[in-house]
Amino acid sequence: MQGIFISMEGPDGSGKSTQIELLKAYLEDKGYEIIITREPGGTVISEDIRRIILNKDYAEMGYMTEALLYASARAQLVTEVIKPALEAGKAVISDRFVDSSAVYQGMARGLGVDTAYKINAYAIQGIMPQLTIHLDLPATVGISRKKNQAELDRMELEAIDFHERVAEGYRKLASLDPDRIKTIDATMSIEDIHAKIVDYVEPLVKQ
Amino acid sequence: MQGIFISMEGPDGSGKSTQIELLKAYLEDKGYEIIITREPGGTVISEDIRRIILNKDYAEMGYMTEALLYASARAQLVTEVIKPALEAGKAVISDRFVDSSAVYQGMARGLGVDTAYKINAYAIQGIMPQLTIHLDLPATVGISRKKNQAELDRMELEAIDFHERVAEGYRKLASLDPDRIKTIDATMSIEDIHAKIVDYVEPLVKQ
Repeated sequence: MQGIFISMEGPDGSGKSTQIELLKAYLEDKGYEIIITREPGGTVISEDIRRIILNKDYAEMGYMTEALLYASARAQLVTEVIKPALEAGKAVISDRFVDSSAVYQGMARGLGVDTAYKINAYAIQGIMPQLTIHLDLPATVGISRKKNQAELDRMELEAIDFHERVAEGYRKLASLDPDRIKTIDATMSIEDIHAKIVDYVEPLVKQ
Repeated sequence: MQGIFISMEGPDGSGKSTQIELLKAYLEDKGYEIIITREPGGTVISEDIRRIILNKDYAEMGYMTEALLYASARAQLVTEVIKPALEAGKAVISDRFVDSSAVYQGMARGLGVDTAYKINAYAIQGIMPQLTIHLDLPATVGISRKKNQAELDRMELEAIDFHERVAEGYRKLASLDPDRIKTIDATMSIEDIHAKIVDYVEPLVKQ
């Protein structure tokens, strides 16, 4: 593996997309070819699975069904996009990856972090991000930002205590793996957040 | 659990649907309320997942993606249909269940039977059939029957050696768990196969 793999995590509305665009520009400037992906999604099959996961008519979806669907979309993304890109020396930035399953299904849904990672071990084929940026934001702030943007999907429509478990879950997960997961206060300005991200990314960049 | 759970397994074209109808009539006669399900499918969400799994435009689908999709459809079927039906004392007959994943993904795709069962342990929540009927048929016979019936799906379109690994895989699996999995020669007449199935089902029926 010659490339760089960075995942961007955090509650909905924490500014992941904006920061991914800025990070993309930074890494392009360093000479990398960039692949940006999002989860669930990022391939034709995975986007088709995404449509099922986020369908707000599917209120009856079981938590284990949800966890396995995320894992299946991830398996396809790793096989078809992430693994080949890293082998070709590219920089991959993913809007969410396996930690989202640990937090959303493992913690907020209550399946357990261990179960979430075990299921996803089959999906990721040993491929983990070298760096995960955790954009930390109070749950109420994130979801009210989202409400102003677009119609909410099945996950975003969850009650506020679900989003609070997500925000708290990310903090706990980051404390368990501080070498990989770097927490940044997402209430700061866009420029300040980007500067912090660059501090963490810089050591991974080829000289 | 008060109900009866029977799964019907075997290669495509082995006559599962016909035998399920006959078994349904037999069990109704014994006073059971019957739930018939099929895999992948059997719920609105699982049928939507089925559409992805069997889509013949998805030639790029990875084997692990496929295995996780089957498991997700199964998780929803167990949660929404099979578990409640068994708890209510009904008889559930499923056209395929977890053994299909052991044979198709574990053996024919080469992921390993152990991996297939481990992934599916998350899906089935401890619920296994009391009896599995294995309709044994040479691969060439099964697939040529299917070709005469309808347009083939992504799995049915696999090369003949894949279907041979499936037929052989079922025989091996049955030999590993002979108490639960009963093999019947599916080249016999419909009536003779049904009579054999009744022999195996009879001891499970409430007196």
